[in-house]
This record gives sequence, C-alpha cells and structure tokens, in this order.
Amino acid sequence: MALLMKSAMLRSRSFSSAHRLFSCRRIHNPDQISQKIVAVLYEGKEHASFNPKFLGCTENALGIREWLQGKGHEYIVTADKEGPNCELEKHIPDMHVLVTTPFHPAYMSEERIKKAKNLKLLLTAGVGSDHIDLKAAAAAGVTVAEITASNVVSVAEDELMRILILLRNFLPGYHQICNGEWDVAAQSYRAYDLEGKTVGTVGCGRIGRELLKRLKAFNCNLLYYDKFSIGEEFEKETGAKWEENLEEMLPKCDVVVINVPLTERTKGMMNEDRLKKMKKGAVIVNNARGGIMDRDAVVKAIENGQLSGYGGDVWYPQPAPKDHPWRSMPYHAMTPHVSGTTLDAQVRYSAGVKDVLDKFFRGESFPEEYYIVKEGKLASQYL
Amino acid sequence: MALLMKSAMLRSRSFSSAHRLFSCRRIHNPDQISQKIVAVLYEGKEHASFNPKFLGCTENALGIREWLQGKGHEYIVTADKEGPNCELEKHIPDMHVLVTTPFHPAYMSEERIKKAKNLKLLLTAGVGSDHIDLKAAAAAGVTVAEITASNVVSVAEDELMRILILLRNFLPGYHQICNGEWDVAAQSYRAYDLEGKTVGTVGCGRIGRELLKRLKAFNCNLLYYDKFSIGEEFEKETGAKWEENLEEMLPKCDVVVINVPLTERTKGMMNEDRLKKMKKGAVIVNNARGGIMDRDAVVKAIENGQLSGYGGDVWYPQPAPKDHPWRSMPYHAMTPHVSGTTLDAQVRYSAGVKDVLDKFFRGESFPEEYYIVKEGKLASQYL
Repeated sequence: MALLMKSAMLRSRSFSSAHRLFSCRRIHNPDQISQKIVAVLYEGKEHASFNPKFLGCTENALGIREWLQGKGHEYIVTADKEGPNCELEKHIPDMHVLVTTPFHPAYMSEERIKKAKNLKLLLTAGVGSDHIDLKAAAAAGVTVAEITASNVVSVAEDELMRILILLRNFLPGYHQICNGEWDVAAQSYRAYDLEGKTVGTVGCGRIGRELLKRLKAFNCNLLYYDKFSIGEEFEKETGAKWEENLEEMLPKCDVVVINVPLTERTKGMMNEDRLKKMKKGAVIVNNARGGIMDRDAVVKAIENGQLSGYGGDVWYPQPAPKDHPWRSMPYHAMTPHVSGTTLDAQVRYSAGVKDVLDKFFRGESFPEEYYIVKEGKLASQYL
Repeated sequence: MALLMKSAMLRSRSFSSAHRLFSCRRIHNPDQISQKIVAVLYEGKEHASFNPKFLGCTENALGIREWLQGKGHEYIVTADKEGPNCELEKHIPDMHVLVTTPFHPAYMSEERIKKAKNLKLLLTAGVGSDHIDLKAAAAAGVTVAEITASNVVSVAEDELMRILILLRNFLPGYHQICNGEWDVAAQSYRAYDLEGKTVGTVGCGRIGRELLKRLKAFNCNLLYYDKFSIGEEFEKETGAKWEENLEEMLPKCDVVVINVPLTERTKGMMNEDRLKKMKKGAVIVNNARGGIMDRDAVVKAIENGQLSGYGGDVWYPQPAPKDHPWRSMPYHAMTPHVSGTTLDAQVRYSAGVKDVLDKFFRGESFPEEYYIVKEGKLASQYL
C-alpha cells in the first residue's frame, strides 16, 4: 500500500511535470493544459469514408481530432501496436493518455506501463480492459477506465445472432448455395428451433442481462450463473433463474453464453473438464474474451461431438494468427472481434471517449461505473 | 359453380370406387378402407439416422409408415418428383392422398391433378401450398390442406437470424476467419445494431406476428402492412403500427421482411418499382416464397447499392438451379428452403400429418384453419 501511494505520488509529480512542459500554450486555463493523447485503433483503409458513423478507425480517429487539437492537445492515432519498433512504442515515454479498444488491442504490459512515465489515463473505447496489466497500472497510479455500456446492446444482439446461426445450422446451408449445391437434409438434420431450449449465461452483467431480455421473447428456459442473484424483479421480467453453481448449470444447457470479463479467475475457466460437464451436443457462444476458453479443449470438444457448435468474435491474441485452430474447426461461427464495434456502437463509444477526456481535462470524476482502476484499486469484477 | 359441384360429385364417386377396389382388406371398418398415400419428401441420405426427430426425410417418412401400414394403407414415399418418368408420376393415376412439403415441392399442375382420378386430398406438411394449382384442385373437387402453424415459430426465428446476419454484416467477417484473414474494418464499416432501426413486415399473418413479438425485445420501430389492422391489443403488445399502404411503408424501413403467401396477387409484387421505393441501403429478408420477388430486380438492387443485403431460403423453382443469380450476388444470406424444417418443426408437422390423415380416414373435418381448398373453394388468402 505504501508502494501504491508512492507510485501515485510519483504519477502526480509526473502530471505537474507535464504541466510545466506544455504550459507555454494555455497555462492560464487549467482545463487546457496541453496533453499528449495517443489512440490505437484499427485501420479503415478503403472503407474509411463509407459512412460518417465509421468513427472507430484510425482515419476518423473517434471524431475528436479537431476538438482535441482545438484545445491545444497533441493527438496521435495509429494501428501499429506490436513489437519494439512500432509507432505506439515511440509515444509510450511521453504520452499522457492512451485510448485503446478491445477490437485491436494495444497490449499494455507491465514493462510498457513502467516506461510510460507521463501516463495518467488508460481509456478503453468499448468494454473490457484485459489487454492492460491492471495490477501494473494500479501500482503505477494510472487510472484505467472504460466506456461502460457503450456497446452492451451491440454485443448482446450479436450473441443472439450466433445462437441462432449455430442452433439452426445456417452456415452449411449457406455454403451449399455459394457452391451451387442444394441439399435440404444436409442442413436440416441438425437444425433446431431456439424455442423450448435451455440457455444459460455464464456471468450476468450488463450484456448478459440484455441478452436475457431479448431471449425472453423466444420462449426458452433461461438460466444465469453469477456470484449473486440479480433479484426477483429481473427474474420475473425475464423468467431467468439464478444458478449459484456453474457445474450444476452447465449440464442443463443446450446453449451456453459466456458473459464474464477475462480476469485471473476466469482465464481458461472453460476447460476440458467443464466442457465435458455440458450436455452432449450443446453449443457455446463467446463474445466475452478468447482467453476464458481453453483453446485446444474447444477444438477437441467440437471434433468429438461433445459440442455441436462454437461461435464468437474473441480470440487471444488479436489479430488471431493465421494458424489459430478455431479458424478451421468444424461448426464454428467465428468472426474478427467486431460485435461491439457496429457503427452505432462506434458513435456511442466515441462520444463516451470525448466526454471522459473532457472530464479528465477539467479534473472532474468520471461516472463511477467507468472506473476499472481508480486510485490504485481494481474494480470489483477484476479482484 | 355447377361445374365445381359436378367435379366434387365425380371426386366423391371416385372415393366410392376406391372403397370398392380396396374393400378386400378391412371393409367392415369404414375408417380402415385401404387408401394409397404418396408422400414426396427430401432425401436424408447419410444423415437419415442422425436424430430420431429427423422425420421429414424419405427414409423416416414422417414417422407414420408403421401406423399407415398397420391400418392396411399403401404408403409410397419418394423424392423423385420431376419429369414424366419420375416415381411420383407412376402413382398419380391411382393415389388417394398426396403429402408434399414446401421444402422439396412436388409441383402439382393442372395436368397432374387431372390425371389423378382417385385423388381426394393434397396435404402440405408445413405451410404454403403455392406449389399446387389451387384452382385446378378446387375444380377437381380435391381438398387441399396444410399443417397450419406447425412451423410458424421456426420461420420467424430464422427471419430474425437473417435480419441480424445482414444488418451486422456477419458473413464477410466469417469469410475472413475461414480464409486466414483479419480485418475488423472490412466487417464493421457496414455493420449496424438492430436496435433503433425500423422493421416492416409485408403481410402479418401467423409468422409475421411471431416475428414482431420477438422483435419487440430489440427496441426497434415496428410496422406491418396488411389488408386489415390486427387490432389494438396486438399493437399494444408489440408496439407495431399498421400501414395501410405498402408504398407508404417501404420508404420508412431499414429492414423489410416478406410474410405473405405466394398467390396470383403477390407473384412478383416486389418488383423494380417497389424496390426503388425502399430506403437506400435497406435489407430484405424473404422466407415466404421466391416468386414474390422479381428475381433480376433483386440482383440489380443489390449490385447498385439500393439494397445492402438480401437473405432468405425460398427460390423458384426448388431446388434452385446451379446458375440462379441469387447464389452469386454480393451481400446475400441464402440457404436452401429449410427455415420451416428444423427438427422441432418436423416433429410438429409429422404429428399434424398423422392427425389429419386420421381424421380423413374417419371422415371427420380438419381444423378449419388447415383448409386451403375446401369443397371447391379457395381459402381467403388465396383469393
């Protein structure tokens, strides 16, 4: 704790130092002290100008370039995030704020955080900050925040889509059409309705709850595993029942959806042992984080028929390597990490980033639910 | 009308004649008069024994073979339905009942119906009897019936899946993963949430209503075009608003879903003119019937960007020819005709077929909503 306090003090000194360095610009106005903001986003390339809502790519830079520069801040935006010679590395020593996303994560290791002597804020444009060494950030007195709830609906909708794609065996039929074939049986022999099936979510935070609200209309049996019951009102609204014990929920489910953050406790939690506890032929949808799964146990379970499908958009690392075995396993419904970066989500998390930066410049607090690391302490879900 | 009456009488004589022909078996019991039942189903092939619910394939024959044969009836099941030398043609002259499905439709033309001198019942295992010349059936005094509602939920779920697949631009991301690529932007630049979008259904019978009930949970603006308003209670339950005029609804919708039967009035109704009235970049989902669309106008609208996606499982004819242009147009989410033949739907429509045949053998009426042609008259939706 003494160490944390010291780091926080150091960090606070570093803030003063930055103040002096850049005070030449607008020293009279404390909310206008020039800061170096770095954002690591994915590249839009030929698609960058397709839609004005496409704010999340490097070219459109979250739509805040003019605003930041108008305030006298420096704003560096790059997709180049890996290796010792990448663009990000050049700016680590003197950046004050780093904005990252889960879709193209800049992995902020302890080593990088230690090098970032001026760093005060690590801001995730989206939800999920597991690409950051949170303990190292806490030890260094760096604040970590997310734009909580900005893409909750986007991810929940996507989960429901993947449940339907897997249960209804959509992809084999789609491939037939593309290949000039026609064989109704080859799709329908393992196609099911969602109605009447049992769906369980592992974790029931914001995304899990949005998923359950939507699933209610499909007349399923709904279960959720979490540390605590959400309460009678929610259970009545959705018809979902609390499961206190994951091992007891898994064998009941036709569909399991992963909705926990990646933490030290959840890393690899869906291992061979737990997959074996599932109902034979069930499907898993995971838009949470790839690292929650035992990668090779998933492949094995798909290949031996224990699972009849696996769908999601999360991998470790990201971008997923060309030879990642989930790319080629049967019955997958995988994409790059996109469910939380629809155009609608981009508008929301870009607005959230602007709002948080504005508060940061003014020295104001963020909404409490945005904090992942605050004053050297991790948010409860990461403990 | 006189003609219809005469045909009905002829048909009724033909029934008597069949009675005599087969009376050798169980003449003492009027519900056991031996009849020749023919069913045209799709082949299950190597998948036939995968799941006991896979009743809709030729091998499993709707699960009624033993029951029919135990009653002394003849039961022919085939997938061979096209051309003058197909298996179906051999049985047309003396069959009493023909069971067909929309998934592998036996096209019952006027010519075939005229040849079927003993035919009393054309029974569709599923919903949609447009593969039958209904006027010819009516003129011949043949009853046409469906297992109404047996796969309504299956089709509505599938429609919602395709809406999400198209809006969220799932397939380009999926292809990336299969091809060893990773480009978040190439999926996300045209990926949208469903929330907040305007979805309109063209036709709002059983499937349309099930779709709207599910869409309600997604916080969309919901519209439905139909001849009549469904009423305040339904509109309050779903939040959907009635549109009296199709031309006025189309420009409001981000998503248009087709939920009308194929009839003389709806054939080709979604033509170039109507597609042009839609909002630029909207998507269409059509699990109703292929013939409702102007095939080439759809391709043109996708290629020029008027539509940003088209998804569905219905084609004309079926099986779709190898060179059908919907197979190769961009931004499609097409499969063979499967949405109403999930394993759950197969169980329901097989049970429905058994129930209807049982009533037929006993000389009892079917549930009123099952009739498409009854006593020489077409059901109202086909008028």
